[in-house]
Amino acid sequence: MNNENKLSFSSDYMEGAHPDILKRLMDTNMEKSAGYGLDEYTESAKEKIREACGAPDADVYFLTGGTQANATMIDAMLRSYQGVMAAKSGHISVHEAGAIEFGGHKVLTLPENNGKITAGSVESCINSYKMDENNEHTIMPGMVYISHPTEFGTLYSLDELKALSDVCHKNDIPLYLDGARLAYALACPENDVSLHDIASLCDVFYIGGTKCGALFGEAVVIPKKGFIPHIFTIIKQHGALLAKGRIAGIQFETLFTNDLYYKIGQNAIDTAGRIKAALAEYGYEFAFNSPTNQIFVRLSREKSEELSEKIEMGFWENIDDSHVIMRIATSWATRQEDVDRLIEILKQ
Amino acid sequence: MNNENKLSFSSDYMEGAHPDILKRLMDTNMEKSAGYGLDEYTESAKEKIREACGAPDADVYFLTGGTQANATMIDAMLRSYQGVMAAKSGHISVHEAGAIEFGGHKVLTLPENNGKITAGSVESCINSYKMDENNEHTIMPGMVYISHPTEFGTLYSLDELKALSDVCHKNDIPLYLDGARLAYALACPENDVSLHDIASLCDVFYIGGTKCGALFGEAVVIPKKGFIPHIFTIIKQHGALLAKGRIAGIQFETLFTNDLYYKIGQNAIDTAGRIKAALAEYGYEFAFNSPTNQIFVRLSREKSEELSEKIEMGFWENIDDSHVIMRIATSWATRQEDVDRLIEILKQ
Amino acid sequence: MNNENKLSFSSDYMEGAHPDILKRLMDTNMEKSAGYGLDEYTESAKEKIREACGAPDADVYFLTGGTQANATMIDAMLRSYQGVMAAKSGHISVHEAGAIEFGGHKVLTLPENNGKITAGSVESCINSYKMDENNEHTIMPGMVYISHPTEFGTLYSLDELKALSDVCHKNDIPLYLDGARLAYALACPENDVSLHDIASLCDVFYIGGTKCGALFGEAVVIPKKGFIPHIFTIIKQHGALLAKGRIAGIQFETLFTNDLYYKIGQNAIDTAGRIKAALAEYGYEFAFNSPTNQIFVRLSREKSEELSEKIEMGFWENIDDSHVIMRIATSWATRQEDVDRLIEILKQ
Amino acid sequence: MNNENKLSFSSDYMEGAHPDILKRLMDTNMEKSAGYGLDEYTESAKEKIREACGAPDADVYFLTGGTQANATMIDAMLRSYQGVMAAKSGHISVHEAGAIEFGGHKVLTLPENNGKITAGSVESCINSYKMDENNEHTIMPGMVYISHPTEFGTLYSLDELKALSDVCHKNDIPLYLDGARLAYALACPENDVSLHDIASLCDVFYIGGTKCGALFGEAVVIPKKGFIPHIFTIIKQHGALLAKGRIAGIQFETLFTNDLYYKIGQNAIDTAGRIKAALAEYGYEFAFNSPTNQIFVRLSREKSEELSEKIEMGFWENIDDSHVIMRIATSWATRQEDVDRLIEILKQ
Repeated sequence: MNNENKLSFSSDYMEGAHPDILKRLMDTNMEKSAGYGLDEYTESAKEKIREACGAPDADVYFLTGGTQANATMIDAMLRSYQGVMAAKSGHISVHEAGAIEFGGHKVLTLPENNGKITAGSVESCINSYKMDENNEHTIMPGMVYISHPTEFGTLYSLDELKALSDVCHKNDIPLYLDGARLAYALACPENDVSLHDIASLCDVFYIGGTKCGALFGEAVVIPKKGFIPHIFTIIKQHGALLAKGRIAGIQFETLFTNDLYYKIGQNAIDTAGRIKAALAEYGYEFAFNSPTNQIFVRLSREKSEELSEKIEMGFWENIDDSHVIMRIATSWATRQEDVDRLIEILKQ
Repeated sequence: MNNENKLSFSSDYMEGAHPDILKRLMDTNMEKSAGYGLDEYTESAKEKIREACGAPDADVYFLTGGTQANATMIDAMLRSYQGVMAAKSGHISVHEAGAIEFGGHKVLTLPENNGKITAGSVESCINSYKMDENNEHTIMPGMVYISHPTEFGTLYSLDELKALSDVCHKNDIPLYLDGARLAYALACPENDVSLHDIASLCDVFYIGGTKCGALFGEAVVIPKKGFIPHIFTIIKQHGALLAKGRIAGIQFETLFTNDLYYKIGQNAIDTAGRIKAALAEYGYEFAFNSPTNQIFVRLSREKSEELSEKIEMGFWENIDDSHVIMRIATSWATRQEDVDRLIEILKQ
Repeated sequence: MNNENKLSFSSDYMEGAHPDILKRLMDTNMEKSAGYGLDEYTESAKEKIREACGAPDADVYFLTGGTQANATMIDAMLRSYQGVMAAKSGHISVHEAGAIEFGGHKVLTLPENNGKITAGSVESCINSYKMDENNEHTIMPGMVYISHPTEFGTLYSLDELKALSDVCHKNDIPLYLDGARLAYALACPENDVSLHDIASLCDVFYIGGTKCGALFGEAVVIPKKGFIPHIFTIIKQHGALLAKGRIAGIQFETLFTNDLYYKIGQNAIDTAGRIKAALAEYGYEFAFNSPTNQIFVRLSREKSEELSEKIEMGFWENIDDSHVIMRIATSWATRQEDVDRLIEILKQ
Repeated sequence: MNNENKLSFSSDYMEGAHPDILKRLMDTNMEKSAGYGLDEYTESAKEKIREACGAPDADVYFLTGGTQANATMIDAMLRSYQGVMAAKSGHISVHEAGAIEFGGHKVLTLPENNGKITAGSVESCINSYKMDENNEHTIMPGMVYISHPTEFGTLYSLDELKALSDVCHKNDIPLYLDGARLAYALACPENDVSLHDIASLCDVFYIGGTKCGALFGEAVVIPKKGFIPHIFTIIKQHGALLAKGRIAGIQFETLFTNDLYYKIGQNAIDTAGRIKAALAEYGYEFAFNSPTNQIFVRLSREKSEELSEKIEMGFWENIDDSHVIMRIATSWATRQEDVDRLIEILKQ
């Protein structure tokens, strides 16, 4: 697994936590505090996140992982006769082992373009429901799920997000944003969507910790206080309530102190930028045009196997008998010297 | 919350983690490893737990909390037409916000005695189902849930556990043990049930980390390999799969190195012993006869309020208008000097 | 099963349908109409029920059976963090094969007295939730389920029903009444609760057809139009929507024409009255004091076996090794000559 | 709704029941029998169905409707980590209001051709699961759902059904067939799949009553006795157990006496044949090539509106701004004189 002779770029959650986080856990370790997120560290983390989002009244909760956050919040927002619209390639559509359906809800898949859906396709899904004379026999589109960055590393523009938000609110349904890798969007020059924008355009979203420097943890933000009544109990019911809530609180407090969350994103974007430039220079082909920390390269099987002897990449997809897509991911922890070595190998 | 002038004995999960655990997380932090528990630390932790349990083929998984572990494993074991038998006072019966029912399952409550159920009451529940001519219209008793120590800090004797195991297996249903505070049982002189016993008598159980010195985490042990097919996917579906699985793995590897898990229990039991002796000497009344780290004291409201000015205790229950039950809990982190001060206050 | 030489009093759903219903199905059989309850017979049945209930705006739906109606409507009314309060002996607590839990909801059982719960016990359940400092970790009492008549044939008085309604509405939770055998209450001299009362005191209830003369069918009434949004889809989702909705509609239209529903109740009550008088005269012991069409007799096993040779009764419960409770049920179809024969046998 | 001046061909469930069924219900009405399908009529119906299917040991249950049968049986067959493969156009994929997801299961949609799926696409779905290195994070294909005839009136050939059965059994997953309109397949000259074939190739299927001449009811057949343990309780839990089970039993006993089920299909096929010949002659365009009792015609909106003044058809789909698909359905109850009038109108 941690083969020392091999460069590893297979994912953005291979190390422990950003050292500042571990240090803070160490410093506070022997203090006593109340459980279940009722401690002062958690409260301070919530306050810092409210500030970062420009959402002074927001409800904020810390859950442990992405599938858990998605399944819990989607279940909390939908009534039984409603489903969640999501890209065919959305994480909830494919990679959550049916967690949404386990909660009783249908995922209404929309066509995707580089992992993104459009306000148009949301509107058309809603309209086709509205215009269907027999729609009482079908699941009502009840909310929208998007990820930013998407599973393909792509980004919504502010205009696209506004359009999605508009179509949702015109139709009285919530917009939910999965920010598992949000730090890598926020640090990306191509990104024009700020945390303030997200908080003002989305009804619920989460700021990812697990893939952005924490040991684990996702900060669910509900900008409008009380939007989901009894959410604490719903979280508990989904097995998503941490007894030692402060462990998550301390991590997010650290992430939102001294811009750490943004710095974490910055390193990933910088190193990914160098790798992409090299790939382009050496004639590699990109599978998707991802501006963030995930790079998807189309390779012949031979080339893929050759590279894999020296570099651990993430397997993404079989294209055909002779081609595959492999993922190269950078993170807060990616070191420039490893990027140098990687570029050298890619050059060969 | 962490009032420095006040002694705090309100629960056993008020601090971070045992220092050895934090140190180990620190030491390994920058290593890269595979996600989802497929790393070498997790593998090593599993191996050490298999050894400690005398169950060389056991499936072992690390989940984040007790409610999550219970809801996931009970859902994994029951078919839809079955329910889980548990003490009326069992954690799953009252304090899990309906997590078992959220998974579609009924909790069949049995009478409890100091938090414990008997093989006799299990048998009688099963027999009354079997002898009911209309039982096809009712939920079948499909497994047994017990906690050890119980929610009241009490312990099953080896004979009691054997009897429960016998009645379960005679009736072809699994026995599940919730060991949220197992360390405190293992270190208790009154306890005659070893990890080997548990592994040989129970079909599934978990070794608690959250309340026994870890930042979080519960080690689910399935002694008979393959007993629950596709358990990995079931865990994922319940939002219970950690992306950075190693964070849990490293913690349990540390807990099961150099007997740390037992030492953690020892401190809690020793300090609880001193407190109980003092309480008895000063004429306090115990609500339950708990041999482990939770002490339940019956107090008049006046006395309770008086003590609460100097000691943080856990509120347990209103008995009547003028009496309450309060909980004093010790842990791996309880310091002798705090016990000294507590005893002094109790004396007054 | 239909042993011609044996008197059968084992339940109130042993025959087909009241002849008027069958005749009406015959007369309308070859007409064509829209499906899913959108036909004129169903509309007419709804209108007649609205009138009978004094609820001109009520939403009315026809489902096929009691468990289905209970599971569907309870699921429609509860949010995931809520449970339904019901008597320990309530149909949903014991005899619906976990249908409520299958929908994700906990049944919060209350003590019963002859099958009934009191406003006091509802209030105390709600208060104990409210006063519990840790109630966010538990299921919130979210509605009340009662049956009228109860499973033991007993009746709520108007005052008792008003008190239940008051405590529910004071606490903003709905009151639901299962009227599987409502005809037998309405015809009972001891009953002082009218359909108008029920419609004004309950938020949702159903008027039983299956056990009151229909082939099948329960009329769910929601007095306040729109109280449950999208109920049509929820019914469909629970597999409870009849394609040929008119078959249920025609039956209820017939039941609510010319007071048929009340007449059906009358015969059951009259014949039950005769049987009860005879039982009392001959020194039999009643297990519950039921004023409706179900009679519960406490018998020694010998006597029970002796009677069972000549009379089919319903087995109710084992009391101890030598005593059982048996049920004698009358219905719209019970004939006076069979009652004569029954009384003769009881006399021996 | 039942406009007397208008011809109605909008669906195959517009009338009550075949007169033989009503007569039989009438004749047996006042007999007393046990509830819940434990009566002799139900037993006789089961026996006749076993015979018709050449499956002497089959478990047979009578449920009330198609969505209910599908949701109950699919839930009974799948484990939580599995999903059901079905055509994108399958009834469970679109028109059951999320009933499958309510039970916790994902529908894995496959491409369809005229409503049918192929063994090839099933195999490719299974293989792509098997070859996915991360498949433990996804839902496992756990069974196959097909309808025969399909929602588009098309038929599987015996070879196609055999191929589907083979690929299922090679992969140890059950094949389930929804026979809501099975009578219309069995009577169709193009059909080469017999009830014996279905019983030997499918693990579970249902023989439709609601759309084939019954008041309501679907006969679920499980050729291999005991294949689904505790199915009675599962049916009850889904609210699908009829108290007066015999009402369904009597209907199916009648349908399977003197070949009534086949005769019912015959009339629908004959009349549909005449209509299709006329449509072809007059130059109408078919949307799908359906050999059974549902005819799908592509019409301009003007033509559709013109025809709709004289004929009630079923609205199927908007193609574009100026074209629609309308459905003409025949049934056991379609009269030749109405077909004459319909043809005359179509001619104009």
